[in-house]
Amino acid sequence: MVPAGSTLLAAAAAAHVAIDAPCGDRGICGKCKVQVQPPVSSADGPRGDTAKPTPGNEATHTPAAIEPPTLPEISLMSPEEIAAGWRLACQARVTGDVVVSVPERTLQPAVVPLAEVRPRPAVRKAHLRLPEPSLEDPVADVTRLRRALEPKLSNVQVSLPLLRALPRLLPSHRYDLTAVAVGERLVALEPGDTTDRAFGLAVDLGTTSVVVILVDLVGGQTLGIESRLNGQANFGADVISRITHATTQPGGLEELQRAAVSTINSALESLLHRTGVERDMIYEAVVVGNSCMNHLFLGVDPGSLASAPYQPVVSEPVSCTASELGVAINPMGRVYTLPNIAGFVGSDTVAVILATAMHRSTEVKLAIDLGTNGEIVLGNRNRLLTCSTAAGPAFEGARITFGMRAAPGAIERVWIHHGGVKLQVVGDSPPIGICGSGLLDAVAQLKNAGLLNGTGRLVRAEVGDGLSASTLRERFTRIGDVEGFVLARRGRRPVVLTQQDIRELQLAKGAIRAGISILLKEYGIGEEEISEVLLAGAFGSYINPASARAIGLVPPLPIERITAVGNAAGQGAVMALLSTELREEAIQIATRAEHVELSARPDFMEQFVEDLAL
Amino acid sequence: MVPAGSTLLAAAAAAHVAIDAPCGDRGICGKCKVQVQPPVSSADGPRGDTAKPTPGNEATHTPAAIEPPTLPEISLMSPEEIAAGWRLACQARVTGDVVVSVPERTLQPAVVPLAEVRPRPAVRKAHLRLPEPSLEDPVADVTRLRRALEPKLSNVQVSLPLLRALPRLLPSHRYDLTAVAVGERLVALEPGDTTDRAFGLAVDLGTTSVVVILVDLVGGQTLGIESRLNGQANFGADVISRITHATTQPGGLEELQRAAVSTINSALESLLHRTGVERDMIYEAVVVGNSCMNHLFLGVDPGSLASAPYQPVVSEPVSCTASELGVAINPMGRVYTLPNIAGFVGSDTVAVILATAMHRSTEVKLAIDLGTNGEIVLGNRNRLLTCSTAAGPAFEGARITFGMRAAPGAIERVWIHHGGVKLQVVGDSPPIGICGSGLLDAVAQLKNAGLLNGTGRLVRAEVGDGLSASTLRERFTRIGDVEGFVLARRGRRPVVLTQQDIRELQLAKGAIRAGISILLKEYGIGEEEISEVLLAGAFGSYINPASARAIGLVPPLPIERITAVGNAAGQGAVMALLSTELREEAIQIATRAEHVELSARPDFMEQFVEDLAL
Repeated sequence: MVPAGSTLLAAAAAAHVAIDAPCGDRGICGKCKVQVQPPVSSADGPRGDTAKPTPGNEATHTPAAIEPPTLPEISLMSPEEIAAGWRLACQARVTGDVVVSVPERTLQPAVVPLAEVRPRPAVRKAHLRLPEPSLEDPVADVTRLRRALEPKLSNVQVSLPLLRALPRLLPSHRYDLTAVAVGERLVALEPGDTTDRAFGLAVDLGTTSVVVILVDLVGGQTLGIESRLNGQANFGADVISRITHATTQPGGLEELQRAAVSTINSALESLLHRTGVERDMIYEAVVVGNSCMNHLFLGVDPGSLASAPYQPVVSEPVSCTASELGVAINPMGRVYTLPNIAGFVGSDTVAVILATAMHRSTEVKLAIDLGTNGEIVLGNRNRLLTCSTAAGPAFEGARITFGMRAAPGAIERVWIHHGGVKLQVVGDSPPIGICGSGLLDAVAQLKNAGLLNGTGRLVRAEVGDGLSASTLRERFTRIGDVEGFVLARRGRRPVVLTQQDIRELQLAKGAIRAGISILLKEYGIGEEEISEVLLAGAFGSYINPASARAIGLVPPLPIERITAVGNAAGQGAVMALLSTELREEAIQIATRAEHVELSARPDFMEQFVEDLAL
Repeated sequence: MVPAGSTLLAAAAAAHVAIDAPCGDRGICGKCKVQVQPPVSSADGPRGDTAKPTPGNEATHTPAAIEPPTLPEISLMSPEEIAAGWRLACQARVTGDVVVSVPERTLQPAVVPLAEVRPRPAVRKAHLRLPEPSLEDPVADVTRLRRALEPKLSNVQVSLPLLRALPRLLPSHRYDLTAVAVGERLVALEPGDTTDRAFGLAVDLGTTSVVVILVDLVGGQTLGIESRLNGQANFGADVISRITHATTQPGGLEELQRAAVSTINSALESLLHRTGVERDMIYEAVVVGNSCMNHLFLGVDPGSLASAPYQPVVSEPVSCTASELGVAINPMGRVYTLPNIAGFVGSDTVAVILATAMHRSTEVKLAIDLGTNGEIVLGNRNRLLTCSTAAGPAFEGARITFGMRAAPGAIERVWIHHGGVKLQVVGDSPPIGICGSGLLDAVAQLKNAGLLNGTGRLVRAEVGDGLSASTLRERFTRIGDVEGFVLARRGRRPVVLTQQDIRELQLAKGAIRAGISILLKEYGIGEEEISEVLLAGAFGSYINPASARAIGLVPPLPIERITAVGNAAGQGAVMALLSTELREEAIQIATRAEHVELSARPDFMEQFVEDLAL
């Protein structure tokens, strides 16, 4: 029993039914879909072909005692679904007893829950009490240390800086200390017993957005997430312009390397400040990114990625010290980059596969990592195909007239309904711009409302008569020569979606949809054989699967097969940080995945043009 | 048959009898001792209890057809030995047929011949021809490299600097290159096939003298040897004053670290200039030295070595990159320090044991490494005891009035004979000073001539009458308040041995002899049970075993059991550089050897005072 006004999600939790709700009650991801049973005998069972009731998943209430569908629900589901009683558990509030059936899909998380990852980090700690040196036992400090370490951490390498620190540290710690190893390398000797504190950093280094996640390596929890615009953007918005800068400007590569590291360090400072974690207790950073970001971060010339045969310099994992790269964790700590696959398909895609466990799935899934480069993976445990398309930074709010990251003031949801425009703004602030998920929504809603034609052109003329139509018509405007649609009028200045913004989105979605088409062709299956579409992205907000489907970013599959999973690359990085076993699995994934080089495909451009239409 | 006037050494070589002559025909080491048979029937066999004829070691000549003993022979052997027909094969010249028996000892080298060391260096090279990247084969550069390397060098680590160089190197080398690994680490990629060229550096880092040896790692030969005064001498002559500087002066440790490295680099420059070897083709340096030198070289605080319980910071081998330490070989190359034993007994002693193969001997041997610190090893395959005594730099010519290294102009041999003083000078130059071996000779000869009493006092009054006595009397002089004996009068200025110099030598020899006494006591054997005494030192010239015995530096054993073996520590370093198997053996030696801490022994000082007398 839960109080009236509680959500179905809260009611399910009270009944010990664990519903997957990755977006955190925000009505964004559409993942927590459940079906309310019609007000007939509760013995009838569920309706709808996707609903599979499982024993124990039903809670008995009097029928129809539930509030009507909310705007997010209407937006995320088709009228047919709503008519069939489908609701989002995080949105629907009960007023009395209802019978609800929870489909298996809603119980199975689309990404591996971090709680299921057993922490087995590369960082290991051992508390030691060493006997003090004496004439009877005058062995060397290092030998003394090794003797005590042997049962816990054997054969660790002692670097020169630590060797130099040793004669000072042992007596100052009174021979009571905690040794810290990352992999086979000793990185710190701390006074007393600090075995309960060990931290790591997972970094998703995107072309436009950089997400830095602070992780407790002992408990396995995420302590904080910070995102930043990649400081490399000053040298070019996309990977090609960055590569040009790196290869043609003297010192350009070093500038880009430092810019990436500074961006990470800036996010790290906020995390340290916010959580109070000691910098020197962050011993490892696992970094993922597309191949170009990976190369630039390591200071490796990415030039070969830009022209045929597009081979990277390195695709295997690279491991170096934090001080070598300038990452401001413990300077003797380790930076580990997950393996790349091929071409631009980098370790971020490996991390997406790891987080979604596609590589273990028996059914064929499609994962799309929406960023400045859109990486696409199609496959299952038997075969994994990948490709990369230059989507541009539209999904991250860049190169959009009022574009911004999903920070307070960003329009993240748009509904056009009964002639009105309803907005959801990050932080419930006055709207000042639009982020990727809002852009997708806005275009999808304009299309649904008949304000955009099939070619993606804003069509004021076609808006019908009547009150609601005229209200919408008032929102058409011009910025210079460019047609626009006013989304918000009540902030400090209006937020306008322009024809140009729509074109940017069309190019992005066309590239991705064409990539999907090529992968399906290469795999030899049809769209309908995709059991699940996973929409991932580091852009900070979950995108609306219905909007993604509406604009044709993803194939026209039943909406319940399309799931927004947030920053799966970041989560994969966290998983690899937490578990060396999963890191090995990542290496297997990178080796197994087959890469389809789209620029080598004569059919790609044709497909792209075809897929531009909305 | 050899021409009349040839040495016995040359005759033996012509008869394919390999006599050990480590000092290289210079009549210094006394190692090539053979016994000329008396002019009777050649069927009689050899005389003398140490002579064991072995079949095939006899060359038939007519008897007595040999020139009389030379000064080096008279100096190195007792009158009884000379009467018994013992000769030095490198000195005795034949005039006709003689029968000579070669004792086993003379056939067995006192140090392991480098020719017997099978080169198996840590440096490995592999010539590769890589397929160029193509759309059909667009794998990463590193993967391409690994694929080709796999059969030859598997699992090598690619460091960040090399990874960064890779995209430039592969095309510039036209994918035809030689990969160079040291241990598991890739250190260079060179154009074309360079597998026939690989070099290494063996360094004996002494408190006073630093010996640097350039070694061809392919053929196993020594290409050049350079020695330098350790630049650390500016901060103190002995280890204690260096430790004081390192621990009390701000930046003192770094100054000493840089001074050691600069000294090595200065010798290296000469070697590069002289041999034409490319700096970047020197991939590894193996460094030995006493524990204090080892710590200072690595930049590790040696403070704990100076006070009880005298534990070192590190005794195991340390491996780091050349650039970390500043050694001017290939910057990505490796510097490897052999393990220390304990206290001040460092890797130089391990190298001496390795070079003399004491640790494999069935008989008990005594090795003395004469340097500023005198390290002593007593034992055999079953047990090895070591200790270290502060001998001072007298053996290296330092703190001696006219002391110098064994450079041109240094008196290296002294004979006082029939009232005359005969000298052998390095480079046959006019004498300008005296080196360690000359100092030892001079004191021994003065003592034999009755010009020094048992307490080590120069005694002009006791010189007898007669012409020769008066000639010697004229050589007595004073420098200030100090009595002296003029060794050479004909150079630009006279070279004088002072009473103070003799005291320095007495202190040095007293310390070493006391150390020997303590080790014998600890081992539980008498002096006579020592099968061989090996006199090693990096001071540049072989010391005279007879002189060493005469002044009581070594126990009064038959002279043929005392052998000067030159810089055995340097040779041990060369062996470890050439063979990773021998490096493992060095680790075993360091682990096995037991250390006797003399400063912890109440009986040491008593023994020292007793052993001061000449």
